[in-house]
Amino acid sequence: MEGVVRSSTAAAAANYVPLSPISFLERAAQVYRDRLSVVYGPNIKYTWEETHRRCLNLASALNRLGVSRGHVVATLAPNIPAMVELHFAIPMAGAIICPLNTRLDPNMLSTILQHSEAKILFVDYQLLQLAKEAILLLKESTSHPPLLVTIPEPDSGSGYEYEYEYEYESLVASGADSEFSIIRPHDECDPISLNYTSGTTSKPKGVLYNHRGAYLNSLACVFMLGMGEMPTYLWAVPMFHCNGWCLPWGVAVVGGTNVCLRRVDPEHIFDNIVRHKVTHMGGAPTVLNMIANAYRKLPHKVDIMTAGAPPPATVISKIEELGFRVSHAYGLTETYGLGTWCLWKPEWDSLATEEKGRLKARQGVKHFGVEDVDVKDPTTMESVKHDGKSIGEIMLRGNTIMSGYLKDPRATEEAFAGGWFRSGDLGVRHVDGYIEVKDRLKDIVISGGENISTIEVESVIYRHKGVLEVAVVGRPDDHWGQTPCAFVKLKQGVEVNAQEIIDYCRDHMPHYMAPRTVIFQDLPRNSTGKIEKSVLREKAKKL
Amino acid sequence: MEGVVRSSTAAAAANYVPLSPISFLERAAQVYRDRLSVVYGPNIKYTWEETHRRCLNLASALNRLGVSRGHVVATLAPNIPAMVELHFAIPMAGAIICPLNTRLDPNMLSTILQHSEAKILFVDYQLLQLAKEAILLLKESTSHPPLLVTIPEPDSGSGYEYEYEYEYESLVASGADSEFSIIRPHDECDPISLNYTSGTTSKPKGVLYNHRGAYLNSLACVFMLGMGEMPTYLWAVPMFHCNGWCLPWGVAVVGGTNVCLRRVDPEHIFDNIVRHKVTHMGGAPTVLNMIANAYRKLPHKVDIMTAGAPPPATVISKIEELGFRVSHAYGLTETYGLGTWCLWKPEWDSLATEEKGRLKARQGVKHFGVEDVDVKDPTTMESVKHDGKSIGEIMLRGNTIMSGYLKDPRATEEAFAGGWFRSGDLGVRHVDGYIEVKDRLKDIVISGGENISTIEVESVIYRHKGVLEVAVVGRPDDHWGQTPCAFVKLKQGVEVNAQEIIDYCRDHMPHYMAPRTVIFQDLPRNSTGKIEKSVLREKAKKL
Repeated sequence: MEGVVRSSTAAAAANYVPLSPISFLERAAQVYRDRLSVVYGPNIKYTWEETHRRCLNLASALNRLGVSRGHVVATLAPNIPAMVELHFAIPMAGAIICPLNTRLDPNMLSTILQHSEAKILFVDYQLLQLAKEAILLLKESTSHPPLLVTIPEPDSGSGYEYEYEYEYESLVASGADSEFSIIRPHDECDPISLNYTSGTTSKPKGVLYNHRGAYLNSLACVFMLGMGEMPTYLWAVPMFHCNGWCLPWGVAVVGGTNVCLRRVDPEHIFDNIVRHKVTHMGGAPTVLNMIANAYRKLPHKVDIMTAGAPPPATVISKIEELGFRVSHAYGLTETYGLGTWCLWKPEWDSLATEEKGRLKARQGVKHFGVEDVDVKDPTTMESVKHDGKSIGEIMLRGNTIMSGYLKDPRATEEAFAGGWFRSGDLGVRHVDGYIEVKDRLKDIVISGGENISTIEVESVIYRHKGVLEVAVVGRPDDHWGQTPCAFVKLKQGVEVNAQEIIDYCRDHMPHYMAPRTVIFQDLPRNSTGKIEKSVLREKAKKL
Repeated sequence: MEGVVRSSTAAAAANYVPLSPISFLERAAQVYRDRLSVVYGPNIKYTWEETHRRCLNLASALNRLGVSRGHVVATLAPNIPAMVELHFAIPMAGAIICPLNTRLDPNMLSTILQHSEAKILFVDYQLLQLAKEAILLLKESTSHPPLLVTIPEPDSGSGYEYEYEYEYESLVASGADSEFSIIRPHDECDPISLNYTSGTTSKPKGVLYNHRGAYLNSLACVFMLGMGEMPTYLWAVPMFHCNGWCLPWGVAVVGGTNVCLRRVDPEHIFDNIVRHKVTHMGGAPTVLNMIANAYRKLPHKVDIMTAGAPPPATVISKIEELGFRVSHAYGLTETYGLGTWCLWKPEWDSLATEEKGRLKARQGVKHFGVEDVDVKDPTTMESVKHDGKSIGEIMLRGNTIMSGYLKDPRATEEAFAGGWFRSGDLGVRHVDGYIEVKDRLKDIVISGGENISTIEVESVIYRHKGVLEVAVVGRPDDHWGQTPCAFVKLKQGVEVNAQEIIDYCRDHMPHYMAPRTVIFQDLPRNSTGKIEKSVLREKAKKL
């Protein structure tokens, strides 16, 4: 339109800027300058102004090490302060952050390092041995392994000796006297981050996030968690997991304080909540379980967001007694972490505890960054009925869906077939539009032509007093095709036999859904803590 | 990068959607479907599902009336429910909403209608006479006047007779049976809205907003107002003023309830606050003043945001006693309404009332949608010192700056000269980075080479017990160049003479700043209620 001067340099500079989480840090350094940005242990405390300066220095140092636009820089560290800084500094150097899961084995690490072509690997001092092994393996197949930068314990003093040439704090210091100017994205859809999914198969996929999506999902996440201005956020969700739900960026939007935590155990969690007056935190269901069992009352309310699996009603009520307020969200690595959450309706407050738990277990509704979420027939792409029963695949689309899988156009096309991101999760849609996950597409049991949600069977078995953990898979059956088979880990000192579990199930669900087989054992888990149902399926097949 | 399939149709549909406030309504219709979206008077109540359907119908009807992509559709109405709907329906028809100030005269209205080339004009039934006069004038110079659509009082029943062919509710009803699909922006920088600034000169300028900026500013405004999920927002800021700070769109993000209000008077405000349990509202300083004088205690806290001029400390303390919590924001039509706000620091809570008022009067810090705000020398473009004293021009840049002035590339280039939007406001930057407006660039008085902020002089005179209103302008002076001249309106029944005002000023400010001339009279105001200093300057010149 006439009068709109988008092509002019001056106007473009004045009224168009590519969206990027980098701007959150720059703004925080101005607006929240003397507020605490990061605290860790008894001694480490930074303000937003300091964090901004340290990130600039680090970006400058990376630049002088040869990192430039589009390069990948990997990290291997728990939730220490350096992880918050690297989430800004690496993109500020024009590069892509690739946060690696600290529980991977050297083999998998070397595969990912090779696939990502990471130029630098930042390693926490406690994980040096692991990194060295991975790089040794990597050297067998490439002559360009990543440069190693060691991150010492921040408050370890100067007595610590480093085996490697580059050390984190020296690098930060080395960037201090330069006139570095941030290498901003040319286009807001330029990549900012690369997250490898563990999956349950052996081949990891590199999920690419872009600046625009990260910006929008950060905002949405801050909204979903109900963060007001200047909250205090405790880091119990690994920052290597979907970039910690984009919250290293999101906390900067509201000038919050990141309470870093090397080890996620109840004692550390409670101590940090009290010491730093934590207002918000996130955590996998196992973290909630851990907290519920530790059972210490809080001096103030803490909002806790959980995702990955619906929290059992008993855990919710136990943890809410302590002073937590639990919310439940849903998403995948491909959706920048959280994509939907179970937005709580005020009228649900007056319901009975069990009913509340049942409602809170829903994956809920999309946040504003997601354009659409639906439950569809994966073949016809028709939406299922909103009846809480008809099962379909959960699909999402919008700006907070990954750019694609790195070097894997085929997997990318498959994931986006039909113009939607196919989550691989099976679910239903309730009358009020809330979605609920019923199973992974590949986990569902089909018995005598009936779909059986293993999650539903598990949720019933979880309610049995003797059960600590359970996983249900399909066991091949000549007559029925498959029958449900439950792998159960009992609580310590408890004695229950298979028939009791089966009877309990038949008392609480349709008979065809009750497991025919119950095996007592420890459950195998992958590097992100997910139960490996593929292993259990193999075992069930051989029974 | 390899693996990123941005050019593929499927991927683009799955992971890229132009940002647009239209998505807020579509999401609200799903997520908050049975929550109240709009309430008005004792009888009108819509849910988000209903509002969505009504907007779709209306968009469909507009489409059949020939409205298409890029057309302008104007409105002339107070804050009635139709105004909320038109903020969505017009963009959903691919068109640009042009909300006209209801206090304009027929001459100005016809000038704007001609300049904007509006295809349709939606008119509140009480403003029909005004609209008819404007269109009569318009017919003298164009053969294509806009089509008129009358909006009756929503709860007036069916007995009302309409003089014109098109009537709002019939139009909504007529769109109901169509299969209309929303005409979404091709590019998120396509225009969504056209706001005419009254300015203080005679020639109005048409400020263009785009979908991207409106999306981002809506989110930022919801953040600044501290709205949680499902707030209740009372409409005391005209929706024709910067699209009501983008809040017709913003309230949908959090599934809030819009409490519409035809007339802004204290009785209506208090009644609606109590009846609908209002949680948030906005209002010009005059609205705050009105509330403070009405003095009714609230049964619950209400957050009120004010902008346009800093609220006097006495008004703040009075209104906070009643149960309001006051925030202060700053912006211009060209910044989509609010661009900065005085983010309150917790440590300010313990200060004395006067000191609090002084701090709250600052325009503060940028929200996250603004990339940068600065106070600069308009010639050298250098930033002023952060000393609270050095005066420069307030400049902003970022995605929430207008696209430009319609059909006025020269004014657009001027406004964006140097790559920043030049606000025309003079201000300082405090040590903590907060900005404070000192004067309009064209209002400042230069006396003996010293800059005198007329706002500072006015704020002192306002503290005088007998003064109701004051405006200070420069009066030409052979010796000093200019001297300050105060136009004062006294409170009813009060008697004060000019010398008393001058003496009061000399007791409370440097002598060179005190006015030499004081004139007692009513103050001239333009259609948006701003005092017309240009008129007073003319008068001062002739003294």
